[in-house]
Amino acid sequence: MKAERLAKIRRVLSHRQPTLSVLLEEVHKPHNLSAILRSCDAVGVFEAHAVVPKGGMPTYNATSGSAEKWVPLRLHREALPAIREMQARGFQVLATHLSERAVDYRELDYTRPTCVLLGAEKWGVSQAAAEAADANVIIPMMGMVQSLNVSVAAATILFEAQRQRLRAGMYDAPQLDPETLELLSFEWLYP
Amino acid sequence: MKAERLAKIRRVLSHRQPTLSVLLEEVHKPHNLSAILRSCDAVGVFEAHAVVPKGGMPTYNATSGSAEKWVPLRLHREALPAIREMQARGFQVLATHLSERAVDYRELDYTRPTCVLLGAEKWGVSQAAAEAADANVIIPMMGMVQSLNVSVAAATILFEAQRQRLRAGMYDAPQLDPETLELLSFEWLYP
Ligand SMILES: C[S@@+](CC[C@H](N)C(=O)[O-])C[C@H]1O[C@@H](n2cnc3c(N)ncnc32)[C@H](O)[C@@H]1O
Ligand SMILES: C[S@@+](CC[C@H](N)C(=O)[O-])C[C@H]1O[C@@H](n2cnc3c(N)ncnc32)[C@H](O)[C@@H]1O
Repeated sequence: MKAERLAKIRRVLSHRQPTLSVLLEEVHKPHNLSAILRSCDAVGVFEAHAVVPKGGMPTYNATSGSAEKWVPLRLHREALPAIREMQARGFQVLATHLSERAVDYRELDYTRPTCVLLGAEKWGVSQAAAEAADANVIIPMMGMVQSLNVSVAAATILFEAQRQRLRAGMYDAPQLDPETLELLSFEWLYP
Repeated sequence: MKAERLAKIRRVLSHRQPTLSVLLEEVHKPHNLSAILRSCDAVGVFEAHAVVPKGGMPTYNATSGSAEKWVPLRLHREALPAIREMQARGFQVLATHLSERAVDYRELDYTRPTCVLLGAEKWGVSQAAAEAADANVIIPMMGMVQSLNVSVAAATILFEAQRQRLRAGMYDAPQLDPETLELLSFEWLYP
């Protein structure tokens, strides 16, 4: 049992993508946060980021497969410094935001270090954050309703990233260094 | 104002895809149902289907862009007759279900008449429904958690269908016949 679990943990960690992340700008509904972290776990996001909503961080939705154990969420007080930090680390920050410069999300190259910026349920991505981002991306909408649910938008983009990274062989060899991988294997075995 | 709205309605109806649908098998959380219908609206699903959960149909989530006005939901008492009806109408029914015969969702041809079968939050697609389906499809999971949120899974597959249908030019000319399109334009203008 324990050997099997350790093997699974090693396999998952060997698929983790330290160069793929999300930054949530004041997403505040527990079921959205939980759904986003599950998608992050599924595509191998190593670490997620969130700007704490005015009302405080949402609690996790206990009923859904709790991915928060496997995808640490780093909290930020404000969006702009968080975006600048990701950019300084070499990430392109893609704001999901309808603007003049917005492009179809399928046109981007997600094999580059990429952080997807998602906005609050009501207000979306802030103007300042959208401007600070490297690009604005949009999922084409052909219906009457103006926007998708935020966890749906997150997943749609993350699975496009997964598709591109699968094709580029980025899940074939571990992207974490061997020491981190070993260390985390044991942390995850005894959570 | 009204002319603009009529133009938008006509544009949306001219993108509707009568050959793309979903069948929800006892999905019961309001926020999931609402999120799925928003995604349906965005990719042009003309009509969605649901097997009524034991506890009754969920109410809609009033806070999210209410797509239920634009995507009629046809209710069914049981899954198997609903699946058979879709198949009799020429749809391939794709059950999102992990089984021996499950294939990567990206390998399917969504330009064919397609109905995506989605399962309940807790129990997933029933064994009988999965067997009756033409294929079982799965979104590749590389993390610790076993499944995605159901609205996330629905969207991931629907936007793959949108991608394939965009490429095949299926949004370039109306797929509804001219009479239906005109009739619905006026129904939608005065809902
Ligand atoms: C419900 S939407 C916000 C709606 C808000 N009224 C607006 O205009 O931005 C919540 C978040 O979901 C994401 N989102 C929704 N629809 C999207 C789309 N079509 N393309 C990209 N992101 C989208 C964005 O991150 C957005 O900030
Ligand atoms: C939370 S899941 C159900 C989990 C259930 N324990 C099971 O094993 O099927 C709810 C629904 O989301 C969809 N789903 C979740 N993850 C999926 C995946 N990786 N591929 C395809 N569909 C998925 C399926 O329709 C599933 O029935």
